[in-house]
Amino acid sequence: MEAEKKQIRYDVAIIGAGPAGLGAAIYAARGGLKTVIFEKGFVGGQIVLTAEVENYPGFEEPVSGYHIVEKIKKQVQRFNAEIKMEEVSAISPEGLCKIIETDENTYRAKTVIYCAGAYPRKLAVPGEQKFTGRGVSYCATCDGALYKGRIVAVVGGGDSAVEEAIFLTTFAKKVYLIHRRDDLRAVHAIQDKALKNNKIEIIWNSVVQEIEGDNAIRNLILYNKKTEQNSSLAVDGLFVYIGIIPNNYLVESRIDLDENGFVLTDDNRQTNIPGFYAAGDIIKKVLRQVVTAVSDGATAAFSAEKWIRDHSDQFPE
Amino acid sequence: MEAEKKQIRYDVAIIGAGPAGLGAAIYAARGGLKTVIFEKGFVGGQIVLTAEVENYPGFEEPVSGYHIVEKIKKQVQRFNAEIKMEEVSAISPEGLCKIIETDENTYRAKTVIYCAGAYPRKLAVPGEQKFTGRGVSYCATCDGALYKGRIVAVVGGGDSAVEEAIFLTTFAKKVYLIHRRDDLRAVHAIQDKALKNNKIEIIWNSVVQEIEGDNAIRNLILYNKKTEQNSSLAVDGLFVYIGIIPNNYLVESRIDLDENGFVLTDDNRQTNIPGFYAAGDIIKKVLRQVVTAVSDGATAAFSAEKWIRDHSDQFPE
Repeated sequence: MEAEKKQIRYDVAIIGAGPAGLGAAIYAARGGLKTVIFEKGFVGGQIVLTAEVENYPGFEEPVSGYHIVEKIKKQVQRFNAEIKMEEVSAISPEGLCKIIETDENTYRAKTVIYCAGAYPRKLAVPGEQKFTGRGVSYCATCDGALYKGRIVAVVGGGDSAVEEAIFLTTFAKKVYLIHRRDDLRAVHAIQDKALKNNKIEIIWNSVVQEIEGDNAIRNLILYNKKTEQNSSLAVDGLFVYIGIIPNNYLVESRIDLDENGFVLTDDNRQTNIPGFYAAGDIIKKVLRQVVTAVSDGATAAFSAEKWIRDHSDQFPE
Repeated sequence: MEAEKKQIRYDVAIIGAGPAGLGAAIYAARGGLKTVIFEKGFVGGQIVLTAEVENYPGFEEPVSGYHIVEKIKKQVQRFNAEIKMEEVSAISPEGLCKIIETDENTYRAKTVIYCAGAYPRKLAVPGEQKFTGRGVSYCATCDGALYKGRIVAVVGGGDSAVEEAIFLTTFAKKVYLIHRRDDLRAVHAIQDKALKNNKIEIIWNSVVQEIEGDNAIRNLILYNKKTEQNSSLAVDGLFVYIGIIPNNYLVESRIDLDENGFVLTDDNRQTNIPGFYAAGDIIKKVLRQVVTAVSDGATAAFSAEKWIRDHSDQFPE
């Protein structure tokens, strides 16, 4: 059966059709490279789950993540990049080339741009899915400004959770920080700031058990692990900061990662393997946003084009 | 008179209202920072000179640079960032703060994001200005794809000129490389590729003396410095690659620059001075495009917000 699978050759194979992958495809295809994007789920990545994006530069009014991504997708198609709805199961080197195996075929590409993304760890409680994008958020930079003068809660106890709780006091009149233990994991300097901030109230030893509401969030049902009691907390929004998980399983054996599993890249967005790039939420970076993802993708594609040109003598025809 | 000047305090002062400065302003102002942008010329930067942009992600049809920038500018205004049409004459430290002097006032800011841009060195010949954006280009990544099957010329002899000449052979049927000397400055490996490429013809010892045309470029008038003869060369486009000049004069005494005068930044887009950031074409980077500029700006603003929060105890009220 293996022999029946074809080997189709591309200049660049992009893994993942989120903003990074689509941004890469625009620059790669427009730069004259034969370009394919592989996507196992849906085109657009995490941002399509967001009802209102107001900080992607170029859209003066708030629009849905889906709207932005649809426009970028049409742009990709205009430059004749292929989008294949196939799940990649393995990527392996073959000389300077890379072999990409999917559930349907085998492909050979001169370069790979890995844009498989990352996702926030979920609470996995009733109401979370229903209210995602309508009160439940995993990104204070994205959604904090929507809570001016309102009451929000943050779940978590690490640096990110505590920092975002402090950041949210810029907008919200009250920020509850819900933590399952009786001390924070965040570094001391950050803890101090949170403890001194009179808008922040820490709710210790507690977990969110359920999220209640109608069109929007109204209440959290909390469970106190010490007292073993339930209680209800009225909030307008809930920010979940209990970790972000990179989709690195296709590359973790070969590509250098940081201690949290994010892909390490240089300024060209190249990984430790020549001709193998990464972009978007999957990489170690300062700010995970649509605009930084498409920018990473553009840089990776530009670098890939140059790398192919520099090695043009060494590829088999 | 000096005493009459007011000191007005901002969280962040952005120098330059191109895509990087506007991108920074969206993220800074939306992040709750009191934000001002200083601009000495016109809002939008170099990109407003471009008639057709087809690779900024989110615009499925080609649009003018002006159109994109107008949309981003409205977004900036929605978040109440101020745009002041004042020319900055000096930036100096005062403890953790930065003092910004303009022709009209003196301002104090906790952070600066320097987005003063860069500009391509011009040929300074008749026709250049008239045909800029209509056949004369300074960016093959931006405009190369517009010359499918056509004839273009590149001016220059360094790495960029020769690399872009090779890149342009992806689209153009013929690429003339016009160089004023009888050997190229580009590194050998790149030269070799150009010399072997049968779409590239090098015109040695020659300079462009005039650009002729009607609605579009038709001819270049060349002057051969050896033979002292003029000649005419029919082309559809001219790519000028004779250097890019960073607008670094306000920072060159204090900020670390690379050997070409571009500002060095870390992954947070911070310079060697804490709380002093830079973004866009002014920084050392792989790819100078609108999308990478707005992304840099967003990252710088995000970093500035965090830096102010981390140092909140240390600023005078």
